[in-house]
Amino acid sequence: MNFDDKYNLYVEEFNSVLADFCSSLDCRPQILCDSLKYSLNLGGKRIRPVLMFAVGDLLGVEKRKLMNFALALELIHTYSLIHDDLPEMDNDDFRRGKPSNHKVFGVGNAVLAGDGLLNTAYSVLLKECKNGSDYISAAEFLCDCAGIYGMIAGQSADLLHEGDTGYNETTLDFIYENKTCKLLICAVVVPSILSGGRCYSELKAFGRDLGLLFQITDDILDVEGSFEELGKSTGKDNEEKKYTSVNVYGLDGAKLRADVLAQRCRTLLEGIDGDGEFLTQLVDFIRSRNR
Amino acid sequence: MNFDDKYNLYVEEFNSVLADFCSSLDCRPQILCDSLKYSLNLGGKRIRPVLMFAVGDLLGVEKRKLMNFALALELIHTYSLIHDDLPEMDNDDFRRGKPSNHKVFGVGNAVLAGDGLLNTAYSVLLKECKNGSDYISAAEFLCDCAGIYGMIAGQSADLLHEGDTGYNETTLDFIYENKTCKLLICAVVVPSILSGGRCYSELKAFGRDLGLLFQITDDILDVEGSFEELGKSTGKDNEEKKYTSVNVYGLDGAKLRADVLAQRCRTLLEGIDGDGEFLTQLVDFIRSRNR
Repeated sequence: MNFDDKYNLYVEEFNSVLADFCSSLDCRPQILCDSLKYSLNLGGKRIRPVLMFAVGDLLGVEKRKLMNFALALELIHTYSLIHDDLPEMDNDDFRRGKPSNHKVFGVGNAVLAGDGLLNTAYSVLLKECKNGSDYISAAEFLCDCAGIYGMIAGQSADLLHEGDTGYNETTLDFIYENKTCKLLICAVVVPSILSGGRCYSELKAFGRDLGLLFQITDDILDVEGSFEELGKSTGKDNEEKKYTSVNVYGLDGAKLRADVLAQRCRTLLEGIDGDGEFLTQLVDFIRSRNR
Repeated sequence: MNFDDKYNLYVEEFNSVLADFCSSLDCRPQILCDSLKYSLNLGGKRIRPVLMFAVGDLLGVEKRKLMNFALALELIHTYSLIHDDLPEMDNDDFRRGKPSNHKVFGVGNAVLAGDGLLNTAYSVLLKECKNGSDYISAAEFLCDCAGIYGMIAGQSADLLHEGDTGYNETTLDFIYENKTCKLLICAVVVPSILSGGRCYSELKAFGRDLGLLFQITDDILDVEGSFEELGKSTGKDNEEKKYTSVNVYGLDGAKLRADVLAQRCRTLLEGIDGDGEFLTQLVDFIRSRNR
């Protein structure tokens, strides 16, 4: 099976679980239910579930063990986008080519939709906890990645440094390693925890480098991509003087850094026993993506 | 020991755990850490922890088993206040006599502070899950109470019906039973779950009635209380045509309903074996409170 087919297969498997989850939602009032489903069904690359399944295949972890972790992770990723798009945060009116949650449902409902998705992620994870202590450890890891020492710390630093007149690499690293990398690290480390810790350190390092690569290619696309390809506004980072790799290293510097990170990702994968071909291709896909 | 002393003792025990928790927080950036601590340290009646400890004493559940559940519940209650006070939600500039989180730290940081507290509540609960299946069940119950079939559903309905020109009792009940009652039900049911389900149904009914009583006395205070006593704006409910018991039943009707609920709470407590004196006094305290 070629890379695209395998990627799409992982996405389909995940989307099928997500569709079941969405049809099981019957909360009231209707606007709450609708706003949750709206953002969950905006599509997207589903990179976190795909990564989790691919690492699961590499380590021999059955997909059924990972499904609810992938679901919880995507719920958390989706809540973070809803809150990030809010006017007083990143102020994005579009997400994946469609109006952001708050543009459709209003800011109040968008705040609650985000809260609802975050809480529901833990409802999904707590059910998994009954399966044993490895599952609890995996849920705790996910929780740490999403929380105030993880993604939220990165979002907070991002907000704090918006509009800074000078840039420095340490701050950029802190923002990216938390805001972007932590959920990608989570995607690749959860299968390791569920396999008794196989290749834990290598996968953690791989998740970090892949996360940085992902974010830097995002920055490059913000300069070189188009609204049509990306489904969101471009050129915003520079206008708003955001802390981005392009603003810190320049466009060529960011591209060079992306190449170095992609190479580091490949080397880390070579050090792991098993069939790492798909993940290696995924690294190349992320480096060369245009959306 | 009289009622006030016992109440204050419970509050002190909880505040000591909360103080330890706050001093263990060392997330970055500093503004994230500060905004979490600011709202956690605004004080308040700590009614949920007090209720949980009192029911624990009634059922003979050791306080050390309840501490982290009380902490998680208060973290969730605090996050809900931060998000509820936001301009596009209830738009409250004051909370407990001090500026709301978003007035001090800005809306973006207040969104993140709420997210951070919610996520941290689950970090606390997941640690408890290692203690066994009763603890997992208690955490699941708390999660359901806080989520899209619980508190968040109530907040969403509250937002949806703001400014309605007519009122009906069914909608009021839905809002109150979810927005206010669910976390109080949680406070009294968690000790039951940790004691193998003792008096589960009675306590659930008690939590609901006490929650309604609490909310209705809040509505009455919004009409009759003062900013100085309450530490928040009064008279807002009527101005904004909010769904409140006073708007649905009239002031006298709301007081009558509060009396009926208080009596139902006392009757439910009489049906539970053990020393229910403090909880009975707590019912009277809530009925006659002026803050």
